[in-house]
Amino acid sequence: MSLIVVGTMAYDAIETPFGKTDRIVGGSATYVAWSASNFYQPIKQVSIVGGDFEQQEMNELADRGVSFEGVEVVQEGKSFFWSGRYHTDMNTRDTLITDLNVLAQFNPQLPESYQDCQYLMLGNLAPAVQKSVITQLKNRPKLIVLDTMNFWMDIALDELKDVLKMIDVLVVNDGEARQLSGEYSLVKAAKVIRGMGPKFLIIKKGEHGALLFYNEQIFSAPALPLEEVFDPTGAGDTFAGGFIGYIAMKDDISFETMKKGVIMGSVMASYCVAEFGPERLKTVTKEDIDARLLEFEELANF
Amino acid sequence: MSLIVVGTMAYDAIETPFGKTDRIVGGSATYVAWSASNFYQPIKQVSIVGGDFEQQEMNELADRGVSFEGVEVVQEGKSFFWSGRYHTDMNTRDTLITDLNVLAQFNPQLPESYQDCQYLMLGNLAPAVQKSVITQLKNRPKLIVLDTMNFWMDIALDELKDVLKMIDVLVVNDGEARQLSGEYSLVKAAKVIRGMGPKFLIIKKGEHGALLFYNEQIFSAPALPLEEVFDPTGAGDTFAGGFIGYIAMKDDISFETMKKGVIMGSVMASYCVAEFGPERLKTVTKEDIDARLLEFEELANF
Repeated sequence: MSLIVVGTMAYDAIETPFGKTDRIVGGSATYVAWSASNFYQPIKQVSIVGGDFEQQEMNELADRGVSFEGVEVVQEGKSFFWSGRYHTDMNTRDTLITDLNVLAQFNPQLPESYQDCQYLMLGNLAPAVQKSVITQLKNRPKLIVLDTMNFWMDIALDELKDVLKMIDVLVVNDGEARQLSGEYSLVKAAKVIRGMGPKFLIIKKGEHGALLFYNEQIFSAPALPLEEVFDPTGAGDTFAGGFIGYIAMKDDISFETMKKGVIMGSVMASYCVAEFGPERLKTVTKEDIDARLLEFEELANF
Repeated sequence: MSLIVVGTMAYDAIETPFGKTDRIVGGSATYVAWSASNFYQPIKQVSIVGGDFEQQEMNELADRGVSFEGVEVVQEGKSFFWSGRYHTDMNTRDTLITDLNVLAQFNPQLPESYQDCQYLMLGNLAPAVQKSVITQLKNRPKLIVLDTMNFWMDIALDELKDVLKMIDVLVVNDGEARQLSGEYSLVKAAKVIRGMGPKFLIIKKGEHGALLFYNEQIFSAPALPLEEVFDPTGAGDTFAGGFIGYIAMKDDISFETMKKGVIMGSVMASYCVAEFGPERLKTVTKEDIDARLLEFEELANF
């Protein structure tokens, strides 16, 4: 059994009101792997990087049970690069640079060793690439989770709708849920989106937590009120990683386990935003996670 | 022992994307009383109305254990009138008309029969009026809850800060908490505001629920995700009414009871928004409240 994570491995340059970084490791698959590996190993990564991607970053993830057989290294190419600047409210950001580089030629080929996949996490990527990974699997995984963003709704809506028919859980934020459904009410939006394929829908609301929809049931997870959000980059990927990592660990896809998965995703995201990039995720311990889980219980219980 | 409710009793004309009303009963004290009376009676109302205020509305509230000895009736005057139009998102609204009418001369004189007050709910009003009620009470109530809004921060900040020193629980929304504290982070805002006087702070976040702050503890209450918000008018007052009504019923001001009070406020607010004005509050039953409380438990538990 294994957990496959598909997504970008990249470099980011980030400016926040608290400081800036020149070039720091990032990418959806990087954050997902750092987060999920706290709960489940092995993780089989699917991505593409250039010759500039540091071996050290791979080694650190390898120590966390991440395998790179499915990661294509284009020696003569450069890794995907994104640069952005966050506004004071930390909820909005301007993209300064998007250099696709090797990502433009990403056409993943799943190694044979990846065919034991039970849990598939499709990180934010072109929907056609996400679909290609699903179709390469000879046996359908127990659970397919897909993360996407408004960008793909703008330029690849048909491909997105196509892959939505093949998945179990969709993860989007509130604005994206409204855009995809054309409904303002999130309850109505959830009905429309679940009609597109995914049985489960998670709507992330940033500092307001997340909602999980399944049949007539709704679960509302709080976000931990934080004094400071240092850098929100990767928080959504980290959330998804905590979610699928916890579910893979439990090897159970009931609504109850998914609820706890949403909480674990929120726990991990609350650590992610505390430092630049995935820095805090690299040092988080089991004790940290348990302590924060307790904080969430105290926060939500009545 | 009694619960005193101070605030406006008024008429509103409301436009929402779902319809409009010409003239419908409203006012902060009206909503608080309808909501709180589900949990606790007698309620001793403090307000001012004109000769146009319908006796029938008073009679309906009297049937719910609301006494009007502290309500001044200015026969030759007109009741406070507000008219507003909600935008499609239901979170923003334009005020079309504000006719203060008799409210301009509101200078409440507490009847002697109100001196047994244990719980005091100061609905949204001029801070100086709120303060005058506190100072007229010979014995300090067990709990003083104050609701206010950005309008008073704009035009009467010093008076507001003055009365904040005298109360236990402040209820504001997130934008108002940021304005009052000058801090964007709600955790930081809560520290600043609690430094102004109130030991407890409730920050309402509309469709995102509410946060309760006390010492180092935080409680996050979800809002019930609703398919349709028909009319948000009075939802905040209704929340405050459910909160203080529940606490007065329990006659306990521990953090645990306050948490449940925040949930009860949310339960009542979820009914308030379902019809125009306080219409739905007039028909809500104990069974309705219990059923929705169960929905909140299922929504938040993990």
